[in-house]
Amino acid sequence: MNKEDFFINQISNSKYNGDDGAFIDGYVYSMDAFFENVHFKKEWIDKGIISLKQIAYKSMLVNISDAIAMNAKPKYALISIAIPNTYTNEDLKALACGFKKAADDFDFEIIGGDTIENSKLDISITIISKTKEPKYRNSVQIDDYICYTGKLGESKKDLKALLNGKKIKKTSKFIKPTLRADFFYEAAKYINASMDISDGLFLDLEKLSKASNKGFIFFKEIKEEVGTSGEEYEILFSVNSKNLKKVDNIAKKYGVKLNIIAKAVKGSYKSSFPNHHFKN
Amino acid sequence: MNKEDFFINQISNSKYNGDDGAFIDGYVYSMDAFFENVHFKKEWIDKGIISLKQIAYKSMLVNISDAIAMNAKPKYALISIAIPNTYTNEDLKALACGFKKAADDFDFEIIGGDTIENSKLDISITIISKTKEPKYRNSVQIDDYICYTGKLGESKKDLKALLNGKKIKKTSKFIKPTLRADFFYEAAKYINASMDISDGLFLDLEKLSKASNKGFIFFKEIKEEVGTSGEEYEILFSVNSKNLKKVDNIAKKYGVKLNIIAKAVKGSYKSSFPNHHFKN
Repeated sequence: MNKEDFFINQISNSKYNGDDGAFIDGYVYSMDAFFENVHFKKEWIDKGIISLKQIAYKSMLVNISDAIAMNAKPKYALISIAIPNTYTNEDLKALACGFKKAADDFDFEIIGGDTIENSKLDISITIISKTKEPKYRNSVQIDDYICYTGKLGESKKDLKALLNGKKIKKTSKFIKPTLRADFFYEAAKYINASMDISDGLFLDLEKLSKASNKGFIFFKEIKEEVGTSGEEYEILFSVNSKNLKKVDNIAKKYGVKLNIIAKAVKGSYKSSFPNHHFKN
Repeated sequence: MNKEDFFINQISNSKYNGDDGAFIDGYVYSMDAFFENVHFKKEWIDKGIISLKQIAYKSMLVNISDAIAMNAKPKYALISIAIPNTYTNEDLKALACGFKKAADDFDFEIIGGDTIENSKLDISITIISKTKEPKYRNSVQIDDYICYTGKLGESKKDLKALLNGKKIKKTSKFIKPTLRADFFYEAAKYINASMDISDGLFLDLEKLSKASNKGFIFFKEIKEEVGTSGEEYEILFSVNSKNLKKVDNIAKKYGVKLNIIAKAVKGSYKSSFPNHHFKN
């Protein structure tokens, strides 16, 4: 067991753990960290590969992604931000601008948080989102189709390029994830279980398998570069065969590519690939 | 204006900002960071001055303090924690143990969060607390008595000792703050405005003054070592003269020292002392 899982096992005393967020009384509560040297590097900022505004915006998006994957609409956000004392007022404005753009784009309010001085830029965000019909990881049914949105692989490829000192496209999903809010909010009523793809398809399939106590029969082999690409923020979900066509039509309506990759069966699924996050 | 205030000014687009937490629909949402090199130092852990369990516990208490100062009872917590990869499973257990002790002591649930690997131990916590009668900073009335609980000064003195490489008492409030939950929940109905003392009495009085648009006439001079001691987590509040005796009786009931320091008047109050937080 890795340290992250060990710690979570130690601390989780709650029935609300185990999904992208905790659903209580109409609201979903989710929290994600976005730290320098863990999720991005200072040299990427210095080289102009990613701006502070884009970092702030992405730190919000990775949190909003959790809300969407649970079929919840973001209403409020709290931001804990640790900022180096070398940052200028212009830098602070750029960060604030990125946070506010996300709040505008997804129509929620920033209601508080904490600001401290630190040796590096570290952001933690809590999103409070609202839903009448939350979607969980534990609801995959036998014979469900397992699907995901979009195209996987670019985030890993671009992260690798960055770590090798290369440039990447300004439009890279690694800089600005594409969230599937409109598609998912409309399709959710036909969907049994869901989660976002943040650790990579293989690891996230393993989590889905464990939560739902189901295995998967794959329709074709998934390439390593597709299955091990983390920080994709596409949606992984399961749908009954009778609803598949409806979900497919909603995907077409919003121009979202739908990948139907497996069927749920008795059993369990384990990934043989480690977590993608790069280490210091 | 310091950078913290500048950033908060840039980002706050919400009527919910400006108190210890944001009150929405029966709940108070608050978030505080507790970072290595900002709120504690690694060498204090290495020297056995403060344990990982105590750090985790204090990181929760400073957040619970916000909830109490708004007359709200903690119900749920989310923890974003960044942990060095040198930490052993025993270290992780100690941290989890500290978080869980706080959840037990104050009867709330840890419902989620995020765990990542990092160069140092950095914790951010969101507390979701419940109240029927939130207390704000903006409600000081003319002629209100301005009071605070407990004895101020120890936190600053002990922090100074630690920064000079000296030991401090195991029972120091700097290691384990004394929260005034029972007193405040009972007294709150008689209280007009409140906040916790985290930045130091003088700075927090300035915030109270600004939020309520009132000045203060002090009954006697407050010493620098009292007024500039941060991280005290006592409660600063205002009360009408007709309720002062009732609040005083409740304080006596719970063995809480009550300091009546000023009267609220037209005007404003400004501290001439800077923020206490130590820098890298």
